[in-house]
Amino acid sequence: MVSAADAPTQGRRIRLGMVGGGEGAFIGAVHRIAARLDDQYELVAGALSSTPERSRHSGAALGLDPARAYPDFAAMAVAEAARPDGIEAVSIVTPNHMHFAAASAFLQAGIHVICDKPMTTTLAEARDLAAQVGQSGKIFCLTHNYTGYPMVRHARAMVAAGEIGQVRVVQVEYAQDWLTTRLESTGQKQADWRTDPARAGGGGSIGDIGTHAYNLAAFVTGLACEALCADLHRFVEGRRVDDNAHILLRYAGGARGMLWSSQVAPGNENALKLRVYGDKGGLEWAQEHPNQLRFAPFGEAPRVIARSAPGAGPAAARVSRIPSGHPEGYLEAFATLYTEAAHAIRAAREGKPPLPEVLFPTVADGVAGVAFIDAALRSSAAGATWVAPAA
Amino acid sequence: MVSAADAPTQGRRIRLGMVGGGEGAFIGAVHRIAARLDDQYELVAGALSSTPERSRHSGAALGLDPARAYPDFAAMAVAEAARPDGIEAVSIVTPNHMHFAAASAFLQAGIHVICDKPMTTTLAEARDLAAQVGQSGKIFCLTHNYTGYPMVRHARAMVAAGEIGQVRVVQVEYAQDWLTTRLESTGQKQADWRTDPARAGGGGSIGDIGTHAYNLAAFVTGLACEALCADLHRFVEGRRVDDNAHILLRYAGGARGMLWSSQVAPGNENALKLRVYGDKGGLEWAQEHPNQLRFAPFGEAPRVIARSAPGAGPAAARVSRIPSGHPEGYLEAFATLYTEAAHAIRAAREGKPPLPEVLFPTVADGVAGVAFIDAALRSSAAGATWVAPAA
Amino acid sequence: MVSAADAPTQGRRIRLGMVGGGEGAFIGAVHRIAARLDDQYELVAGALSSTPERSRHSGAALGLDPARAYPDFAAMAVAEAARPDGIEAVSIVTPNHMHFAAASAFLQAGIHVICDKPMTTTLAEARDLAAQVGQSGKIFCLTHNYTGYPMVRHARAMVAAGEIGQVRVVQVEYAQDWLTTRLESTGQKQADWRTDPARAGGGGSIGDIGTHAYNLAAFVTGLACEALCADLHRFVEGRRVDDNAHILLRYAGGARGMLWSSQVAPGNENALKLRVYGDKGGLEWAQEHPNQLRFAPFGEAPRVIARSAPGAGPAAARVSRIPSGHPEGYLEAFATLYTEAAHAIRAAREGKPPLPEVLFPTVADGVAGVAFIDAALRSSAAGATWVAPAA
Amino acid sequence: MVSAADAPTQGRRIRLGMVGGGEGAFIGAVHRIAARLDDQYELVAGALSSTPERSRHSGAALGLDPARAYPDFAAMAVAEAARPDGIEAVSIVTPNHMHFAAASAFLQAGIHVICDKPMTTTLAEARDLAAQVGQSGKIFCLTHNYTGYPMVRHARAMVAAGEIGQVRVVQVEYAQDWLTTRLESTGQKQADWRTDPARAGGGGSIGDIGTHAYNLAAFVTGLACEALCADLHRFVEGRRVDDNAHILLRYAGGARGMLWSSQVAPGNENALKLRVYGDKGGLEWAQEHPNQLRFAPFGEAPRVIARSAPGAGPAAARVSRIPSGHPEGYLEAFATLYTEAAHAIRAAREGKPPLPEVLFPTVADGVAGVAFIDAALRSSAAGATWVAPAA
Repeated sequence: MVSAADAPTQGRRIRLGMVGGGEGAFIGAVHRIAARLDDQYELVAGALSSTPERSRHSGAALGLDPARAYPDFAAMAVAEAARPDGIEAVSIVTPNHMHFAAASAFLQAGIHVICDKPMTTTLAEARDLAAQVGQSGKIFCLTHNYTGYPMVRHARAMVAAGEIGQVRVVQVEYAQDWLTTRLESTGQKQADWRTDPARAGGGGSIGDIGTHAYNLAAFVTGLACEALCADLHRFVEGRRVDDNAHILLRYAGGARGMLWSSQVAPGNENALKLRVYGDKGGLEWAQEHPNQLRFAPFGEAPRVIARSAPGAGPAAARVSRIPSGHPEGYLEAFATLYTEAAHAIRAAREGKPPLPEVLFPTVADGVAGVAFIDAALRSSAAGATWVAPAA
Repeated sequence: MVSAADAPTQGRRIRLGMVGGGEGAFIGAVHRIAARLDDQYELVAGALSSTPERSRHSGAALGLDPARAYPDFAAMAVAEAARPDGIEAVSIVTPNHMHFAAASAFLQAGIHVICDKPMTTTLAEARDLAAQVGQSGKIFCLTHNYTGYPMVRHARAMVAAGEIGQVRVVQVEYAQDWLTTRLESTGQKQADWRTDPARAGGGGSIGDIGTHAYNLAAFVTGLACEALCADLHRFVEGRRVDDNAHILLRYAGGARGMLWSSQVAPGNENALKLRVYGDKGGLEWAQEHPNQLRFAPFGEAPRVIARSAPGAGPAAARVSRIPSGHPEGYLEAFATLYTEAAHAIRAAREGKPPLPEVLFPTVADGVAGVAFIDAALRSSAAGATWVAPAA
Repeated sequence: MVSAADAPTQGRRIRLGMVGGGEGAFIGAVHRIAARLDDQYELVAGALSSTPERSRHSGAALGLDPARAYPDFAAMAVAEAARPDGIEAVSIVTPNHMHFAAASAFLQAGIHVICDKPMTTTLAEARDLAAQVGQSGKIFCLTHNYTGYPMVRHARAMVAAGEIGQVRVVQVEYAQDWLTTRLESTGQKQADWRTDPARAGGGGSIGDIGTHAYNLAAFVTGLACEALCADLHRFVEGRRVDDNAHILLRYAGGARGMLWSSQVAPGNENALKLRVYGDKGGLEWAQEHPNQLRFAPFGEAPRVIARSAPGAGPAAARVSRIPSGHPEGYLEAFATLYTEAAHAIRAAREGKPPLPEVLFPTVADGVAGVAFIDAALRSSAAGATWVAPAA
Repeated sequence: MVSAADAPTQGRRIRLGMVGGGEGAFIGAVHRIAARLDDQYELVAGALSSTPERSRHSGAALGLDPARAYPDFAAMAVAEAARPDGIEAVSIVTPNHMHFAAASAFLQAGIHVICDKPMTTTLAEARDLAAQVGQSGKIFCLTHNYTGYPMVRHARAMVAAGEIGQVRVVQVEYAQDWLTTRLESTGQKQADWRTDPARAGGGGSIGDIGTHAYNLAAFVTGLACEALCADLHRFVEGRRVDDNAHILLRYAGGARGMLWSSQVAPGNENALKLRVYGDKGGLEWAQEHPNQLRFAPFGEAPRVIARSAPGAGPAAARVSRIPSGHPEGYLEAFATLYTEAAHAIRAAREGKPPLPEVLFPTVADGVAGVAFIDAALRSSAAGATWVAPAA
């Protein structure tokens, strides 16, 4: 069961650097645990904070060689590329507005990139980055981490296998409550940058969490969105970005969907939920109880398929670490993306494509996510009318 | 606890007639149980089926006096009005297209009306009926039965008391799966008329269940919808009405909402759910587990308030029959509307208005429901654009 | 769907009397609603309270003919037996210590008996009553009302059909919290008699709710208990009966079980739960969400079978009134026992046995329940040692 | 939030060895992930399998220095103690019968021990080991890993703070289904040794999982068991140990409990559940959804306290890594024990006791667990009579 996760020495660990994620950042530590969990990476370099001094301090706190605790990502890309033991991959976990420049720098230095979402703050940058990735031949993994959950993998496999028939209806939502009040005015660091259009991009809830929901629906159903109608709203006085988004979706092939993202829904912690209905059955999954997938074949009693339990197929088993009833969570799903990227990076070392079962969001998914935000902003600005996400 | 429900003899039972609800009808039997449960009514007359012979046969099956098993509602209204022991109230439980004529006939005969939803199949009829009710001075109760659930009453009371602050977001949905296939082509009676625009009205899922969802949201929040954008769809080939509806809502005062109704969502039996979020807290309720209400005051641990249990206030207690942990269900909620109507009818006997705590959907709610269907059809026909429900 | 429940006129309504259940009694009103719900009975006589005056008053409140609001049950049995329109059946809903004498009086008067549980306060009385029922040829229905739930019926049918294989383990529990404090010292009427050995019998929680749990396990599994080891305890100072019972069970055929009853478990309202495990599968049911039954065939994904939904077989359908997703609750389950008794009474009118699918707890179940209480008290008095319930 | 977990460099990583856990072992990989997750340890040596050749092979698979992939634990203890860079701590993850000798060897070599449960297969060994630990002054951490869950920590803190008042009733259970059939006869490695008294000890389900349940109840309530009455059973033909245990418990101070362990309960994956009821409130926790704790203060609506969310106090926050709604699971809880042991080991380096908030099961808990198994076996052998666990 655990062997897949517990096998670092299909070769030595991958040398990893990190941009962002210094002291006070929530997501940096998550990335580090994720990189460590399956023992596929060792963190050896970083440009962890936004000032040279804080970067050094953060590097020291993590036990980095002081020579590799860089003042900024540009210096790091150059220096690491020049080292014989330089990093092979970099994690970019800064606020959104810095993703593009950092990713570009490392791709140009011939270093694989693992990048947080949303990929960029503009569609132009997203397309530019996609072109750079194509030219570089490097691996680019976007951490839409929810696609790492085993039962999400199984849901995707079930849809692909036709087990719910043709998809008709997609209900996806991602609700939180931490921005119910104007937290950004208190100096809370996460709230501060995530509600600042200059750093987060134009989207508030849609950028921070709506993109996850949009990506999850696409990942599971395989469907492309053709048009959307978005009613974005800022409920909290003085906030500069949306904190609630109500979006209608039309998919290629005729499926219809609804997407709700909110950061002002009291009682919701991190309530990402996906429901997909086809002409033969329905699937329901909720991130807060991620080890179960509800499957209702039309005309039969619904069943609850659990991770590592009967009914969970190979796509889930491949990314499960422990037996059923032993819950895996957010960090494991995040780690799975890191491990998937590691599989791809190892294959790249050998000049091969990754095996077909290796799955992680790519730069194309990143472009789609930024196009979604762009379309939602355009739609809402026009009074919530129908627009097509850019191809 | 049970005394309120168990007290018929605040006066004798109310003499009740029924239009529709003969053999093979699902909802007729539900109305009869609902009328009987709290011992407020006795069924003494009916025009139960669509042909004289079947009406007689259905009347006999229910033990009605053959003289009062009428061939049609018109004859019944006239004859009952002329009897000294004639019916005081009538239940209209026919397909939708007959509600208007039947309700008119009984109002004109001076008989109180309890009528199924949606109230009429056109907005013009709905307005006409509202005028008739006003002129008649008779009680008109529309059976949006979900408003009879104790925890729905409590949710309404909590919103009114400001316990969740100003309402910002309304998420309401009503999903079923029984029309996943083209059941109407098999001769199934319920599917047959409910998907026939001539009998059901132009709305499919929005008329049959979407109106319940719309009404429930209005009942709990007290908010009026100012505009909606509806994407209605027919997924089943050959179907004549929508079987899925995705609707964005904008409420007076700034709240935003989403409404989803579907009859093609496998694994959903009768999944009416309401979630309301304000600036101080959130409420969540699901019809299939109706005895619990989840209340999340912002910044505190969510609590589960159960019917008849600590935290359930007087609005719920008034319409609860048994102690907590003893589940009440659909029939009890339906019975509560009948009993509320009985309270109003008894008050009307004495020339008084009903007490303020007596709550049931009125003809105004019926107009609002038909205006909702009308607006959704107009919006969808225009490509899912924003329209205002008629006032 | 509703036709079975909604068919009173397989003959006229059964004339019913009631002993106990006057003002202030919780369970009397429940019995009256249960008798009324399916329209099988009309309540025409009563000895409703413990004093003649209060009996008259309670009778008036329920609209009884004053001549049939009797001062006591003995007078009622004699008088009703002498009337041509006398009651055919009586409901006995008094505190436990009066069940025996009242049931005897009506059986001797040739009147069918519906009696609350536990059947008597001594084993000798229970056996005597069983003999009387046998000699009388009258119907005796004990209201172990939880056996009326459709999914309990389905669970029983599944076990009988071998769908979980040979039963190995039975986990049954019934937890409440209303006696967490010494409520009986406040004058609360329910607490007062239910903790008084003179009126309740020697058992506290085991008599009031433990017998329900014990009966439910037997009803579903069909197994007889051969031995038990009971650790009864009174946690509340000054209480005269047990308020918590921990019991080990050994069943004929080798199954083992655990039974927990408690009235001092805060957060439990009326938490009756049954879990049964065989060598091929497991079943789980909880009274507070009674419309679902969890079925886990060994080696397959568990499924949730819902009332009136796919997978719920004929034993459940027979006693269901409405479609799936429309919850039925406690009152409906209670009503089902009344309707089952009505089927048996109508059959008896014609000198026939009831049809085999008609199920209700009988006097034999009543003896078993009292033998359980007796054995639990003996076991606990001996320091929680193994004893055999009397045959 | 993540800082506590993400701070290896309160000093360098602790050098760790492992005994057992080679290829095919489930729990070895779990321990390695747990040791790695918070970056407190580096695995540098092992005696991983039961033969020298397989040990070497397993060591190579994990990337160990071949010189430190020892043929057996005795050689490893001696050699590592002699190295300047020798291991500081060892994880013992073998079948139970080898715990004692291995732990003794490392303690005598002056190496801290992290050991799987149950601690030993006999009570004599358990006591002997306790004495050795006392004499050695080394840290001994027994991996009752469920005590690492944040909400278990919070439950313990709530009980200690009196938030549920005096504990009255403890209901604890641990149900699985993987031994429903005679899996051990198929050669499945886990089933093979866990049902072999020579390797597992005399207890089957009680040793493998019952001890976890027993320990969890003690950890949360702080209560000592004074007497128990155990009905152990083997349902599967040919099995050599119990596969189901029904146990009554009496605690010091008057609380009563029930413990159920089963490995033949179809539909149960790893269903460890604890419910504790006091005179002021109740607590309920289930391992399969470990991020929530239900708290029912008597007379108030129950609340659901979530990890990292409002209401979860410092004892939970100290061992939480990520925000609420981001589920942590089994591996994180396991990692917490490793990190707690690391805190203690670092304190020991400095000659200090660990801080009072550092919590992990000790050798005393190990003795209590073995005494529980011993008492349960004695009780059951005597026909399920009351016995006192050895002090």
